[in-house]
Amino acid sequence: MMLGVAFQGERGAFSEEAARRMFGRGVVTLPQRSFDDMFVAVTTGVADCAMAPIENTLAGPVVRNYDLLLEHDLTIVGEVVLRVVQNLIALPGVTLAEVKRVYSHPVALEQCKRFLAAHPHLEVASASDTAGAVKMVAHRGRRDEAAIAGAPAAEAYGAHILVGGIESNTRNFTRFFVLARPDRAAALPVTAEAGRERKTSIVFHLGRRPGTLYRSLAGLAEADIDLTKIESRPIEGRPWEYSFFLDFMGDRTDPPVERALSHLATHTENLRILGSYAKGEP
Amino acid sequence: MMLGVAFQGERGAFSEEAARRMFGRGVVTLPQRSFDDMFVAVTTGVADCAMAPIENTLAGPVVRNYDLLLEHDLTIVGEVVLRVVQNLIALPGVTLAEVKRVYSHPVALEQCKRFLAAHPHLEVASASDTAGAVKMVAHRGRRDEAAIAGAPAAEAYGAHILVGGIESNTRNFTRFFVLARPDRAAALPVTAEAGRERKTSIVFHLGRRPGTLYRSLAGLAEADIDLTKIESRPIEGRPWEYSFFLDFMGDRTDPPVERALSHLATHTENLRILGSYAKGEP
Repeated sequence: MMLGVAFQGERGAFSEEAARRMFGRGVVTLPQRSFDDMFVAVTTGVADCAMAPIENTLAGPVVRNYDLLLEHDLTIVGEVVLRVVQNLIALPGVTLAEVKRVYSHPVALEQCKRFLAAHPHLEVASASDTAGAVKMVAHRGRRDEAAIAGAPAAEAYGAHILVGGIESNTRNFTRFFVLARPDRAAALPVTAEAGRERKTSIVFHLGRRPGTLYRSLAGLAEADIDLTKIESRPIEGRPWEYSFFLDFMGDRTDPPVERALSHLATHTENLRILGSYAKGEP
Repeated sequence: MMLGVAFQGERGAFSEEAARRMFGRGVVTLPQRSFDDMFVAVTTGVADCAMAPIENTLAGPVVRNYDLLLEHDLTIVGEVVLRVVQNLIALPGVTLAEVKRVYSHPVALEQCKRFLAAHPHLEVASASDTAGAVKMVAHRGRRDEAAIAGAPAAEAYGAHILVGGIESNTRNFTRFFVLARPDRAAALPVTAEAGRERKTSIVFHLGRRPGTLYRSLAGLAEADIDLTKIESRPIEGRPWEYSFFLDFMGDRTDPPVERALSHLATHTENLRILGSYAKGEP
């Protein structure tokens, strides 16, 4: 049985690179047009799991994936942290002086703003995904066009790296969640990993009463549990109320975590444990 | 002296509507190409203040404006909450059956997804701003194109509302900050408002030690101060560390708020008070 991993974007995307990092090169990667399609592919059983980017250290949260976590009943079974290296990619033989226009995803363009500012002759144009921009440039065959993407995208489309490592800040990481259907989670090879620190992710709804966030965090703080990330998303139809997504160290079966979760359940609405998983390391 | 208010987008944008709501119809509104340009216009003195959208109750935070608050030394002098009504807008005389393609900002398209799903013959295309999409449709003069935007955009470009109120959820509000240079804030008419509840916004940096967020909130919670919003943004070059933006009820000169801010200053890095201002009401 081959493991099928859904990811958003074209072949060569950072998400596909993350899938190979997690499951090895033999995995079957299944490109999806959108994050919505990626969640549907797992929910309907077309894919065994999804590789969902959730946060980048320069750009911040991938909010659509946070919202989709609430809309679907998938569980987080793993975490991958990928160092993101951006490259200027063009047809083989093209020189920097020939390039007039550069395509990429707006977040990738933003990550390379110092390089672009230093090369003002390059006109920038946004594309819906980094690897897709390389695919388009390779397909059109124009020598005055280039794309910004990861190295696997250059390889995937027979293009070449004109300038490597052009991101403004090298401390550029994307964190991914590996998502699976709860009834299929146990069968994934990721759950067998041992000897790595564990993390747990939860989500709950907070109403508008003063002090509720503080009280909801008390159980975690008193157990000295390390809260690594807090993210809030608006709730449709309930203006100024939010869903809070928390990531913290520890497995849901650790007694201090169990106690903190019991405390949380009494101070919040709709508490849902999204999963416990091995911490990803770059 | 006319008051000049910078806003992002084309004439007829929701931000321009918010500026007129705050300052009256006699205000001089100054369209800017980007949020970055809008901040620069105020910093350099070209505009007296800016009308910056910070949060929408369906789409969430406007993250670029959070980041720009950190990069510039502007102060929040007011808040506006605007009910966002989306409309399908086309040339005068055009009927719904004639329209084949609809342009708008991706957030506006998302806000109208039920209407668009119920009219599958409409192909959607993204534009960089809602009013700009109306301007483009009006300029091109094609009867098979329409845009989604607010009513003032239809008026601004001589177009007409084909279907009004097409947003999926009517509890759709955008919250704006009015931003000014600290040395010019006192001269703005907004500071003279009385009899309205006050709010304060702050930002600080939290390191990676366990329990720091909880301890930083303790001072606010113990004073029964109502925390209305918490938002975090990544810090460039310091992976997994965040700037936290907090909004809460009360003026910075209220004694309980003063005490809570002193407590916060001892538990956080780089605490900055972004401003105290009258609460906006829809």
